[in-house]
Amino acid sequence: MRNIRLNIQYDGTNFVGWQKQKNGISVQEVIESAVSRILNQKIRLISAGRTDAGVHARQQVANFFTTNKKISLSEMKLGINSLLPPDIRIISIKQVDKKFHARFDAKFKTYRYFMYTGEVLSPFQYRYVWYIPRKLNYKIMENECKYLIGKKDFKCFQARGSSVKSTVRNVYIASLTTRGNYMIFEIQADGFLYKMVRLIVGTLVEVGRGKFSPGWVKYLLKGNQGYKPGPTAPPQGLFLWKVVY
Amino acid sequence: MRNIRLNIQYDGTNFVGWQKQKNGISVQEVIESAVSRILNQKIRLISAGRTDAGVHARQQVANFFTTNKKISLSEMKLGINSLLPPDIRIISIKQVDKKFHARFDAKFKTYRYFMYTGEVLSPFQYRYVWYIPRKLNYKIMENECKYLIGKKDFKCFQARGSSVKSTVRNVYIASLTTRGNYMIFEIQADGFLYKMVRLIVGTLVEVGRGKFSPGWVKYLLKGNQGYKPGPTAPPQGLFLWKVVY
Repeated sequence: MRNIRLNIQYDGTNFVGWQKQKNGISVQEVIESAVSRILNQKIRLISAGRTDAGVHARQQVANFFTTNKKISLSEMKLGINSLLPPDIRIISIKQVDKKFHARFDAKFKTYRYFMYTGEVLSPFQYRYVWYIPRKLNYKIMENECKYLIGKKDFKCFQARGSSVKSTVRNVYIASLTTRGNYMIFEIQADGFLYKMVRLIVGTLVEVGRGKFSPGWVKYLLKGNQGYKPGPTAPPQGLFLWKVVY
Repeated sequence: MRNIRLNIQYDGTNFVGWQKQKNGISVQEVIESAVSRILNQKIRLISAGRTDAGVHARQQVANFFTTNKKISLSEMKLGINSLLPPDIRIISIKQVDKKFHARFDAKFKTYRYFMYTGEVLSPFQYRYVWYIPRKLNYKIMENECKYLIGKKDFKCFQARGSSVKSTVRNVYIASLTTRGNYMIFEIQADGFLYKMVRLIVGTLVEVGRGKFSPGWVKYLLKGNQGYKPGPTAPPQGLFLWKVVY
């Protein structure tokens, strides 16, 4: 029995997300189908985490077990990629210890969220960016990020439809940077709640455009009355950026 | 009467090309419809040149005449962009001399063609690149480019379905560069024949992979017997890059 680890990239535009859904095609089922055909046996993937419909991955990690001993890793990679559509790619592949588990062993994950605040968004970028054509107060938003850092209860940034036991997560990095008219939010944590990153980004933008007052994130996390998160930021700006083991 | 010049960018993936066709939506008709609505009068665009189905534009130029004197240029730009789909953008807009003609006044145009010769093409790039996962001899291909430069008859690089009077064009630049696993062909000329760039690229690739011998482009241009161009390179790698007046 071999335990195989995949580093995967995908453009989430045309998928219902990582996980199987009734209303369309998921990244997971497309890859499972390709891997199963190449290995000539039914394969189940374990991933570092789900991504929602329209969300991209610069680095998703998944592992699977196979009893196939013949096919080499490079043949496997070439074969799987040849069956996958061009918006999903296996970047690298390796054999790992039998105990390796893509979800349980992840030390932390990093997400990046891209926003564009200029007037005209490039037609080559719109699939990967939230277009917000208005002035945002970068300084205030950047300051807001620091309240996110640390081991805290993030239940205020959890969308309905989830049933996790604990909503406490440890956030190591939460930062905002600008590149020209682009704004990039980066967050690194030991785990994420359902739609957590997009709810945080939606809240930051509300603070940045003056609809929520500075310190909003702090009071939200404290559970103060009368504070609610901003709207869920749209999926296309979000990338699962990195998974570290 | 005002003569208005537009600098336009588009992702050609979802269009049948610049010009109106029966089998789908063209870039031209989408823009004409938006401009006509904003100016409240029927508008016809004159463009620097057509692009084929699936071909992109980093800079396309078009002009049109309007009797509308009220609406400002910045209102016009904002209004048109608000009606256009995100894969077509008006980058800039200005009023020009009444004699300006986007096609006749173009001194030269530049096209770039992007190829990827590595094993795994990024899922965020496949819409903009020709994926050629094999070794290509860059040195030989680069050398081939020099035969393209000068005032020559390019009828060997013209696809059927065209009826231009002269097939002589003046090529100022024809170069090949590499960036990692990417190969970029750039060509600048006073005009281009139907599918000329894609036929040239298809030929260069055949030379680069050893199917055609070195000097093939030279003999083709000389009209020597037994030489034919390579296949037409696929549209998604091609960008109308610049139009200079």
